[in-house]
Amino acid sequence: MSQQQQPASVGIVHPQTVQFEEPLALSNGRTLDNFELIYETYGELNADKSNAVLICHALSGNHHAAGVYSDDDKRPGWWDHYIGPGKAIDTNKFFVIALNNLGGCHGSTGPNTINPATGKPWGSDFPILRCRDWVHSQARLLDHLGVEQLAAVVGGSLGGMQAMRWSLEYPDKIRHCIVIASAMNLSSQNIAFNNIARSAISKDPDWHDGHFYDFKTKPRIGLSLARKIAHVTYLSDDLMGEKFGRELKRGNFDLGTEFDYEFQIESYLEYQGDTFAESFDANTYILMTRALDYFDLAREYNDNPSEAFSHTKCGFLVISFSTDWRFAPQRSQEIVEALLAARRPVSYAEIESSYGHDAFLLPNKRYEDLFAAYMNNVAKELNNAG
Amino acid sequence: MSQQQQPASVGIVHPQTVQFEEPLALSNGRTLDNFELIYETYGELNADKSNAVLICHALSGNHHAAGVYSDDDKRPGWWDHYIGPGKAIDTNKFFVIALNNLGGCHGSTGPNTINPATGKPWGSDFPILRCRDWVHSQARLLDHLGVEQLAAVVGGSLGGMQAMRWSLEYPDKIRHCIVIASAMNLSSQNIAFNNIARSAISKDPDWHDGHFYDFKTKPRIGLSLARKIAHVTYLSDDLMGEKFGRELKRGNFDLGTEFDYEFQIESYLEYQGDTFAESFDANTYILMTRALDYFDLAREYNDNPSEAFSHTKCGFLVISFSTDWRFAPQRSQEIVEALLAARRPVSYAEIESSYGHDAFLLPNKRYEDLFAAYMNNVAKELNNAG
Repeated sequence: MSQQQQPASVGIVHPQTVQFEEPLALSNGRTLDNFELIYETYGELNADKSNAVLICHALSGNHHAAGVYSDDDKRPGWWDHYIGPGKAIDTNKFFVIALNNLGGCHGSTGPNTINPATGKPWGSDFPILRCRDWVHSQARLLDHLGVEQLAAVVGGSLGGMQAMRWSLEYPDKIRHCIVIASAMNLSSQNIAFNNIARSAISKDPDWHDGHFYDFKTKPRIGLSLARKIAHVTYLSDDLMGEKFGRELKRGNFDLGTEFDYEFQIESYLEYQGDTFAESFDANTYILMTRALDYFDLAREYNDNPSEAFSHTKCGFLVISFSTDWRFAPQRSQEIVEALLAARRPVSYAEIESSYGHDAFLLPNKRYEDLFAAYMNNVAKELNNAG
Repeated sequence: MSQQQQPASVGIVHPQTVQFEEPLALSNGRTLDNFELIYETYGELNADKSNAVLICHALSGNHHAAGVYSDDDKRPGWWDHYIGPGKAIDTNKFFVIALNNLGGCHGSTGPNTINPATGKPWGSDFPILRCRDWVHSQARLLDHLGVEQLAAVVGGSLGGMQAMRWSLEYPDKIRHCIVIASAMNLSSQNIAFNNIARSAISKDPDWHDGHFYDFKTKPRIGLSLARKIAHVTYLSDDLMGEKFGRELKRGNFDLGTEFDYEFQIESYLEYQGDTFAESFDANTYILMTRALDYFDLAREYNDNPSEAFSHTKCGFLVISFSTDWRFAPQRSQEIVEALLAARRPVSYAEIESSYGHDAFLLPNKRYEDLFAAYMNNVAKELNNAG
């Protein structure tokens, strides 16, 4: 392997913004007259525009998937380990597009941006979206970038749902669909956890029916609780046991300070929740969890997922993680079975990991190798075609 | 089986209250100068006072374990299915004692009773308790009832922790220890869920640092959220799938009413949470979850559970349920292994059930049969001794 093929960072990146003036009809019957998307790209679009890879983000993700914003930026994008020169999604070969979804809170049109009708933030008046709405808005971004067909669309968790919806909404526009730690719909238990998270937000007195911006406040307590619940369900029991066990903050039971946090896991969670509550938008959180709940791949296909997948034309890679209990390997196997029944080309791997659902974001040799091998084959197709 | 041996109700029962004037030294260094316990008994204490069975309740339990309060009372005690004439804990054979634990909210001295020092409800000034404090207070109740040795102490979940603590604190006072759906300590994940529940309560603006009684309010929203979180973790994913699946309240996605509850599971949970919040005390909830977190059977025995159990003198029955993920069968197996290593007599069964942690409260033929068979042997010992 030569020097320049060593995995490296995409370096300093610059987000861009594009305004779409053509109205977007949404699945709930409402229309967005115009909207803005913020995105980043890594690598170069090749001459025949065949090497584009779209990254779909999960609940709390955004457009900053790789690289840094300055030389001393210590926090690279959220999927930097998997996107870059020589990495699984190799920017020497692919033109990678990462955006903040519509309804997000990191620069795309969403609840925290101005509603032209009122001159105030949309808040909870922002339309609830479904995965297909994101897919349609993402297709606009591809038009803008001059990409007619994606080499691959890639996503983990809620991102995997978008990737699957892409395969159905635009079968001619994608050649590969990579679905990581996802499911064809949420289980009742998953919906229940999301419901509790939403309740925590919408019952916070600082929620103000989703118009907290007007009151110069935010439902920090509710959003922090929501995040804590999600965080526990994204980790595995094993990992929490390894990382925190029953370790006490002060080394022994100090029952005098009765409402303090006694266990390390408690202060860790508190920190996670509070940090998230400062940086994320509560309306976006509700919107994203609703999109998760509503996603149901086969609902319009007689609840028959193989009938749904029979409309697709791409190859599939499906990946799950052994200790992920929120999107368990079994849910990925259901995807694979439906694809096989529909006679679609599919590769599947269950990766051993102790990191639960979060594993899809974290370093893991086998995951990297397998992901890279698949993407390498996708790249070879480009060369053969070129 | 004759007519009177058919499983039946213990009938109409009457709670009783006893006041203890001798100070109780607590594990956190504080002392309760006096305290009251509310309890019920079912069946008759035999002549040699050898047939008493103590029932230890779990987080949200109380002293009303069996029977009804009037002829038209439609809601029998919480363990009525397992306590009564001809039932697993046969009141034709046993004298059954069920109490509301110290710190509870159903009649025993606790946060919602008057603190003699202030003339106001204790609230969060009530001492945080550990399982051993309950065991010591329960021993006082036995003294009051003239019971020197229990035929058995029985408990599920947090009740199972008390039963195990009994076997260590008073090895000469119990002949059998029945531990159902429990663990020798909570996992990090379990502590995390309890932490989130406590946060939801203590960050409710109606919490008032645990002195909400003085403000004629209660932290309903926080307590409801706490209950919803617990409820989801007490059910199995499978059961929720069977019971609710992805069933929609109005039969289809109605995205216009965006903050309503779309799925049946959501309104079910909301009802559970709100009902609980009306009837339970928030300080007691915090106290009970703390007792769960703190329980650590072997902490004072070099973290060696078999060393701990080597101090016991009773027989053990350990029961777990296949889909219980909050107190998984593995956690019960650890108890069994420690008992075997300590050469203690132990029977173990993992019961197939789709009901998750809640299974220990619900009808289940194999569980009933096995439980009844063990208790029948306990009763036979009485007859042999008598």
